[in-house]
Amino acid sequence: MLDAASLRRDFPILSTTVNGRPLVYLDNAATTQKPLAVLDASRRYYEETNSNIHRGAHFLARLATEGFEAARHTVATHLHAESPDEVIFTSGCTDGINLTAISLTRSGLIGPGDKVLISTLEHHSNIVPWQMLCEQTGASLLIIPCHEDGSLDQDAYAKLLEQQPKLVAFNWISNAFGTVNPVVDMTAKAKAAGALVLIDAAQAAPHLKMDVQAIGSDFLAFSGHKVYAPTGTGVLWGKRSVLEAIPPYRGGGEMIKEVTFEKTTYNDLPFKFEAGTPNIEGGITLAAALDYVNSVGLDAIREHETKLIQSAATGLSEIDGIRFYGPDDRAGALSFAIKGVHHYDLGTLLDQMGVAVRTGHHCCQPLMARFGITGTTRASFALYNTEEDVAALVSAVKKAAVMLG
Amino acid sequence: MLDAASLRRDFPILSTTVNGRPLVYLDNAATTQKPLAVLDASRRYYEETNSNIHRGAHFLARLATEGFEAARHTVATHLHAESPDEVIFTSGCTDGINLTAISLTRSGLIGPGDKVLISTLEHHSNIVPWQMLCEQTGASLLIIPCHEDGSLDQDAYAKLLEQQPKLVAFNWISNAFGTVNPVVDMTAKAKAAGALVLIDAAQAAPHLKMDVQAIGSDFLAFSGHKVYAPTGTGVLWGKRSVLEAIPPYRGGGEMIKEVTFEKTTYNDLPFKFEAGTPNIEGGITLAAALDYVNSVGLDAIREHETKLIQSAATGLSEIDGIRFYGPDDRAGALSFAIKGVHHYDLGTLLDQMGVAVRTGHHCCQPLMARFGITGTTRASFALYNTEEDVAALVSAVKKAAVMLG
Repeated sequence: MLDAASLRRDFPILSTTVNGRPLVYLDNAATTQKPLAVLDASRRYYEETNSNIHRGAHFLARLATEGFEAARHTVATHLHAESPDEVIFTSGCTDGINLTAISLTRSGLIGPGDKVLISTLEHHSNIVPWQMLCEQTGASLLIIPCHEDGSLDQDAYAKLLEQQPKLVAFNWISNAFGTVNPVVDMTAKAKAAGALVLIDAAQAAPHLKMDVQAIGSDFLAFSGHKVYAPTGTGVLWGKRSVLEAIPPYRGGGEMIKEVTFEKTTYNDLPFKFEAGTPNIEGGITLAAALDYVNSVGLDAIREHETKLIQSAATGLSEIDGIRFYGPDDRAGALSFAIKGVHHYDLGTLLDQMGVAVRTGHHCCQPLMARFGITGTTRASFALYNTEEDVAALVSAVKKAAVMLG
Repeated sequence: MLDAASLRRDFPILSTTVNGRPLVYLDNAATTQKPLAVLDASRRYYEETNSNIHRGAHFLARLATEGFEAARHTVATHLHAESPDEVIFTSGCTDGINLTAISLTRSGLIGPGDKVLISTLEHHSNIVPWQMLCEQTGASLLIIPCHEDGSLDQDAYAKLLEQQPKLVAFNWISNAFGTVNPVVDMTAKAKAAGALVLIDAAQAAPHLKMDVQAIGSDFLAFSGHKVYAPTGTGVLWGKRSVLEAIPPYRGGGEMIKEVTFEKTTYNDLPFKFEAGTPNIEGGITLAAALDYVNSVGLDAIREHETKLIQSAATGLSEIDGIRFYGPDDRAGALSFAIKGVHHYDLGTLLDQMGVAVRTGHHCCQPLMARFGITGTTRASFALYNTEEDVAALVSAVKKAAVMLG
């Protein structure tokens, strides 16, 4: 069992007050707060070892290189990757998806008439890069529809796979609705249809154990800042054979083997995809964040958060005209709308009562369009949230609903 | 005048010992150390305001957004940009150059038979992205040669401009040799020839005042981590009219106006080029670093560093068979080789004596090839270096030269 009250002491920001009230932070799907273990790892890096890496012949350069490569090893272990060579540090999930899309665009593996299959549940970051790829390659986009409960239509998915898409990309957990997609099953079907598969794990990383070998996908991307690490950090995992088969993303230092003005040859994995000085501190602190999460335990975190979500849903369901989006077994987020209440007004009143939620389209405009809405109110949870947070949310939403009703 | 001895107290890492000796850090062209003002700004951000930005209806989201946009304003003022809209936060100089190259590739502005002109002095990060652009557009690369003293051949440059390159890209200061290029004059000539101009200011940012309007270029890129800010930070400045004319780089949240599965429209500047959650802390701490640099004063920094470089050159010139690369009025770095001594062996001995320098090709293999060498030893300077550091360097190189000679 997870003791959230005691874990809260690891997060200095949680003792902040907002508008004279204690902060109730329920915007974790947008970004999580950072524990002292991460903040201290950052400080320690700059106070003790900061240096540029890989090419250095001096003491600090070796320390920094060891720290950064140890971080890669931590990420590889966390993901059950076959090798740290498959772990590419990025500036975030969006960067990882764009890396994949840009490299695939250049690869020649996708051409005119080819199909790329994504889902209605996707965040803009898992839509727009594929639209750009389609624009440049002449491929076209297919969309897996979703049911009224916010789960993907698996029958339609099976049908769409008959069109033999070259690539299938979908999220593990929907940031807007908290839907948990059956990634192992969906990946197996896509692989059987001959597609490459990318998993957007931005929302999965803070809530679920991730085992890339068990999933069987070709790529998996996530952001550090949604899993208790600093902003500007992220990881793209890719299967070695696929990463070796596609051309690099950005050009620059580190990613080359030899440069002449006539011809440049590229470095081995993972460096081929890491041009320039990486976010060295970011890699190290991302590993510190994963260590922190693992010290708490992802099973315990999921169990704890699920209780809070169910408790919030029970409390809020007493409100007249409330509708929840997403299926009952949601993870991370609880998204809802109240009849006759604009989500923006609701968010504003909640803020005045010290409750931080997110309102709007959650970077999922096509999903909102599917449900004929402009947005929802989303409360999203982290390991440090408590039943007191839930009580504050429920009470604030009830008050606001009366005021706005 | 700058009081380096007192400024050193702002940098905790400088009191580290290496191999039992006080650290002499002369690898600043690779990355600079971070002052307390930057480390504290980072910590304060995470302890007081961390939240995702722009889309938030709550208190912390507004604080974080204000902090990030204030940082953009600080950068714009520092660069003398016409507007903060021209300031794009990136993950580093390499990212900024690749952004430009990828967007230009997609723009249709460069096609088969077109020319892209760069210089012999370039870092791989200002070579490889253009090689990739050429590969994809059918354009070809032209190279401005350099003289034996490591300055660019301006006559040859004028001749090459007659071929009407679509783009000219060169660094302001060479990372390998410390050559300071006449950017205002070179930019004026390139603009007169009808080219777009990109300045790689990675090495200029820590040493020189930068005024993009006085330079007259279309783009200017630099990294945060070389100007006392954290790793994973950087800026691409672009002229509004050019940024508006080229397509975006990465797709995702923030950079869109409206997304449907059929058609996506893009956001206004600067957001069009900032897909996904940016490095919020990174923007804020980069601004803190520029504030710090400006509080010391770039004129004073340059004067101080120039004295140290001259002093080092004078001391080292007593060594038999030493050769310095780059012209006498170099900035930031002093690069040299000693006849019969391999730079790698020299670097290793210096490290044992606590002196951190960089040896090798400095990500400039074509420049090394031009001089028929595999690398140099480079001492590079920052505002916190002292005459004691120079004395330690000179004494260590002399000892090592005897041992290796």
